[in-house]
Amino acid sequence: MAKRVIFHELVSLDQASEILLKFARPLGEEEVDIAQAYGRMLARDITAPIDVPPFDRSTVDGYAVVAEATYGASELTPVEFKLVGRVEAGDWPAGEVKPGEAFEVATGAPLPRGANAVVMVEFTQTRGDLVKIFRAVAPGENVMSAGSDISAGEVVLRHCTKLTAREIGVLAALGLRKVPVMKRPIVGIISTGNELAAPGERLGPGMLYDVNSYSLAAAVQEAGGLPVIYGIVRDEESSYKSALLKALSESDVVLISGGTSAGVADLTYRVLGELGDVLFHGVMVRPGKPTLAAVINGKIVVGLPGYPSSALMIFHTVVRPFLLKLQCVEPSPPAVYKAKLAYGVEGAKGRRALYPVVLIARKDGYKAYPLYAESGAISVLARADGYIVIPENVEFMTEGEEVDVYLFEKFKPAELYFIGSHDPHLDTILARHNVKTVYVGSMGGLMSIKRGEADFAGTHILDLETGVYNVPVVQRLGIKGAAVIGLYRREQGLIIQRGNPKGIKGVEDLLRDDVVYVNRPRGTGTRALLDIHLSKLAQRLGTPFEELIRKIRGYTYEVKTHTAVAAAVAQGRADVGMGVRYAAELYGLDFIPLGWEEYDLVVRVDVLDKVFEIVREALENLPRGYEKYEMSGRVKWEG
Amino acid sequence: MAKRVIFHELVSLDQASEILLKFARPLGEEEVDIAQAYGRMLARDITAPIDVPPFDRSTVDGYAVVAEATYGASELTPVEFKLVGRVEAGDWPAGEVKPGEAFEVATGAPLPRGANAVVMVEFTQTRGDLVKIFRAVAPGENVMSAGSDISAGEVVLRHCTKLTAREIGVLAALGLRKVPVMKRPIVGIISTGNELAAPGERLGPGMLYDVNSYSLAAAVQEAGGLPVIYGIVRDEESSYKSALLKALSESDVVLISGGTSAGVADLTYRVLGELGDVLFHGVMVRPGKPTLAAVINGKIVVGLPGYPSSALMIFHTVVRPFLLKLQCVEPSPPAVYKAKLAYGVEGAKGRRALYPVVLIARKDGYKAYPLYAESGAISVLARADGYIVIPENVEFMTEGEEVDVYLFEKFKPAELYFIGSHDPHLDTILARHNVKTVYVGSMGGLMSIKRGEADFAGTHILDLETGVYNVPVVQRLGIKGAAVIGLYRREQGLIIQRGNPKGIKGVEDLLRDDVVYVNRPRGTGTRALLDIHLSKLAQRLGTPFEELIRKIRGYTYEVKTHTAVAAAVAQGRADVGMGVRYAAELYGLDFIPLGWEEYDLVVRVDVLDKVFEIVREALENLPRGYEKYEMSGRVKWEG
Repeated sequence: MAKRVIFHELVSLDQASEILLKFARPLGEEEVDIAQAYGRMLARDITAPIDVPPFDRSTVDGYAVVAEATYGASELTPVEFKLVGRVEAGDWPAGEVKPGEAFEVATGAPLPRGANAVVMVEFTQTRGDLVKIFRAVAPGENVMSAGSDISAGEVVLRHCTKLTAREIGVLAALGLRKVPVMKRPIVGIISTGNELAAPGERLGPGMLYDVNSYSLAAAVQEAGGLPVIYGIVRDEESSYKSALLKALSESDVVLISGGTSAGVADLTYRVLGELGDVLFHGVMVRPGKPTLAAVINGKIVVGLPGYPSSALMIFHTVVRPFLLKLQCVEPSPPAVYKAKLAYGVEGAKGRRALYPVVLIARKDGYKAYPLYAESGAISVLARADGYIVIPENVEFMTEGEEVDVYLFEKFKPAELYFIGSHDPHLDTILARHNVKTVYVGSMGGLMSIKRGEADFAGTHILDLETGVYNVPVVQRLGIKGAAVIGLYRREQGLIIQRGNPKGIKGVEDLLRDDVVYVNRPRGTGTRALLDIHLSKLAQRLGTPFEELIRKIRGYTYEVKTHTAVAAAVAQGRADVGMGVRYAAELYGLDFIPLGWEEYDLVVRVDVLDKVFEIVREALENLPRGYEKYEMSGRVKWEG
Repeated sequence: MAKRVIFHELVSLDQASEILLKFARPLGEEEVDIAQAYGRMLARDITAPIDVPPFDRSTVDGYAVVAEATYGASELTPVEFKLVGRVEAGDWPAGEVKPGEAFEVATGAPLPRGANAVVMVEFTQTRGDLVKIFRAVAPGENVMSAGSDISAGEVVLRHCTKLTAREIGVLAALGLRKVPVMKRPIVGIISTGNELAAPGERLGPGMLYDVNSYSLAAAVQEAGGLPVIYGIVRDEESSYKSALLKALSESDVVLISGGTSAGVADLTYRVLGELGDVLFHGVMVRPGKPTLAAVINGKIVVGLPGYPSSALMIFHTVVRPFLLKLQCVEPSPPAVYKAKLAYGVEGAKGRRALYPVVLIARKDGYKAYPLYAESGAISVLARADGYIVIPENVEFMTEGEEVDVYLFEKFKPAELYFIGSHDPHLDTILARHNVKTVYVGSMGGLMSIKRGEADFAGTHILDLETGVYNVPVVQRLGIKGAAVIGLYRREQGLIIQRGNPKGIKGVEDLLRDDVVYVNRPRGTGTRALLDIHLSKLAQRLGTPFEELIRKIRGYTYEVKTHTAVAAAVAQGRADVGMGVRYAAELYGLDFIPLGWEEYDLVVRVDVLDKVFEIVREALENLPRGYEKYEMSGRVKWEG
């Protein structure tokens, strides 16, 4: 099997970034039309070639005069002027003005030679070629003099300025149609890995879709670069090398994201070392250790981790500043939010650790919710707002510590945060609102409410002693400042294959050798419900619970949603699982009902109004497998 | 001349915005390739069509086994398994695994049927077709189970989500190559005005360049729209109407920015009313009163003010939220910064007032610097970071009041703020640093230092009593926490036409009837210098100063920079002006030296280091008309 790769020349994350920045020589400039210049970086200082305005311009409709000749004019003592001409905006005055003469001017029209002020039309009276003026004007009054706004020769815009609406407006005012801007870096992107297929293609057995080509291309765009996707390369030297050479010949920078096998990392290192100089090989960071960089014919090639969220975090910390600097954008860190850690997290023992987090806006600040998913998880991409950095020398960061959250993109905090049990019908309702959802099971949701992180949680936990759903557990946990709102009953049962080929009748069939079960994780209400059924069965059979569950094939095979249970059954990975009827019907599967349970919401009192809107919507047109009960839409408990 | 327009149906700024939002029906969706989807808005919920990962996947190199068969294995008591197969990432395992059997798996490879865990290769020893296992594994260990990341049937992305690198990564992982996104609004842009010429064209007499077509196009892009520039339309009904109809037939929204004359506003109102329904006509805001909107065949047409900064402010407050909503982006206000007002500003007497401001980052927060320039000024565009809003019922906002600054674009605060006297050589040096410059003359700069707004100021003010430059005035103003740094001497004099056709010899020639002067504003050191020369002349002639200056043609003609003085002389608008030699030479003009003055910097002590860098650079390679003096680069005073 693949040999273990040993990383020489490990550098710190900061060093990796600095090394690349040293190679960030601007790519030069190109001319673009100002209509295409939005968002580009100016490549040179812009000196005004003309005055703005280019002539003395009237700011009103009225009469251009020699101001001094109006002195003494008033309502009672008007002064009479001789009308000697007239000019509209866009025309040029024929003739000039002497003391005692007036020239009719429209707003925006040029002042005739000799005039130094304009009397507004409101303070005049015209008869034939005579104009009576009822108010004196000071020199310069109602005139915007040539160059008073921008003077020819002034440096109006500086190189390395981002061209937004305003700068483009200034360029237009100066009559500049073409503008020198920094070239945008062309970034070639290659994905490696024998197991990868391009999205849109059929997925063969054992294959996965290539994520990095597309997520990195988008990240390159966000950083102002022009991505070129070169597609997937097999883990084999000659095709690898020829893809790399092609990308190098057409791009300014090349990003290669490795497959997950050690063999690929090895191959990347060998080929890069052969074609150019390896700058560093391995970064002391988790995730992202296999990151490496080389310079080949003056062009930078960066090898990124294969896992999508790792690749994206390393892109942000190492590649993005480099791409910005190529365009003469001063590399600034991405937006940072101060937040309090929602859970404790471990450091990476001498390496720097990056943790993707969900950022939650709370009245007293932000909370950062570390995502514990495996580094290969795509759902991290779907949920994380950014990441936190745990320094090399920190072993553990405790709950409540302040952290900096580096955002992947501009952050738009959700209006409400739902954390808790997954319900497929509620999920479709929440999708229509500005709600961020994190499915961690009933207990996880209740703990989040208790810690003040979630706004509302979904839960379905039966108290065995009282036979009451949800309220007893909320009370036992000592939750305060929240209410339990009755939502609906939903039908739980066994999801089985269509036509029930295994002849499953109930929970006791899970003990059969030929039946494979698919389970839900501990902490979910559904897992708890199964275990209640199994406990009763164990009692009936006189078998200890622990022994009983060892007999169930797949008891340890856990998936995280009701729909995932249904999918596992539909695809034959299991024969039976527990879940709501809705999920079974979504996949066209059969369903053995085991009973109805109360799925309720636990809601922080300060957001009750907003959540009641969602509750109302959720109770309309309930699908099969759901029903209202006497407490639906009502407060069951408040504390 | 043009008749006065009376605005019926005046609405408030909020009403104007709300009226448009009512017409903001999403434009529908289109499919794009995920490689082109960056920044787009998702048009539908995305339900996962497949599980991610699509199969149970090993997260390590090792041996897939039935976990239960490894129980009891340890370093001392290894358990022997039979090797029955091998699978690489990207392949599919041939065969299955029973208790006592092991299947070699690479990282990322699928687990064979029957296996539920993987033993890492580190804890094994292989000989022939036997594998010794030295450590027990729990079910699920080192396995990422199918659908555990994303389950088929899960709603993973919701409609109206912006597609960034992460969302695009999720779509790729699901194998989705095409994605339904909201259509981007096509926004037709028309500029009206007989005086307008397109940038890049020759500017005829009395003409100005069209700014709004280009600045609005960029603002439309920033709001996610696709601008189409229809160019300039003359103020004449038939060409106006046909341009509008063409734009309407090809666009989703049309923006018309009016010329400055009342005639155009009139024309817009008449034509829009004829073709459709006018929604409002006039907004109670300053600037922006002539804003109007109409709906024609279900499409919105907005008439914006002609002045570029007014047009942009109204775009931001009224049009931008509308464009965003068309794309199902919840209209959120642009980024807001809390700042303290640097000067008092007046309200607009019953109308809401918008003031463009410069935002200055200070240690104790931000200061907003209202820009007092006339509303037609382009330099406002070059300098303003955003605008403040003064409510209808506020007559005056005083210095130091807290205001909300609405940003035009993402704000990147400058490192240093220079406010003060314009010096053409220093300007070219500052252009190379991250310094924001505001030229308000020597006195304005000193006042800014005193108020703690500027980091450093340029000044050249002679104390008549002592004959000393700069330090006396700084002391007299009671400036604290700042130092005066000697910069250089510069040669001041009269800038005259090349070859001196008017035979000017000195300041006394300004009194001649055939000579036109171009002056600098009060508060500038150059104006003060002229007045010193004129005072002496007045004394010599026995004429009162006030009487003397009335004899100078153009004494009241003020331009704001040295280069603007030179430009006025070069273009024949004046015969002579006062300024530095550098400006004369820039324009190839003649120069009558009047003496040398000390141009120094007044610097807040906490930024001395940074400014000294600039001073050093400015003192290298001084151009003609500048010279070092004994205090150059040295502290002349500190207090």
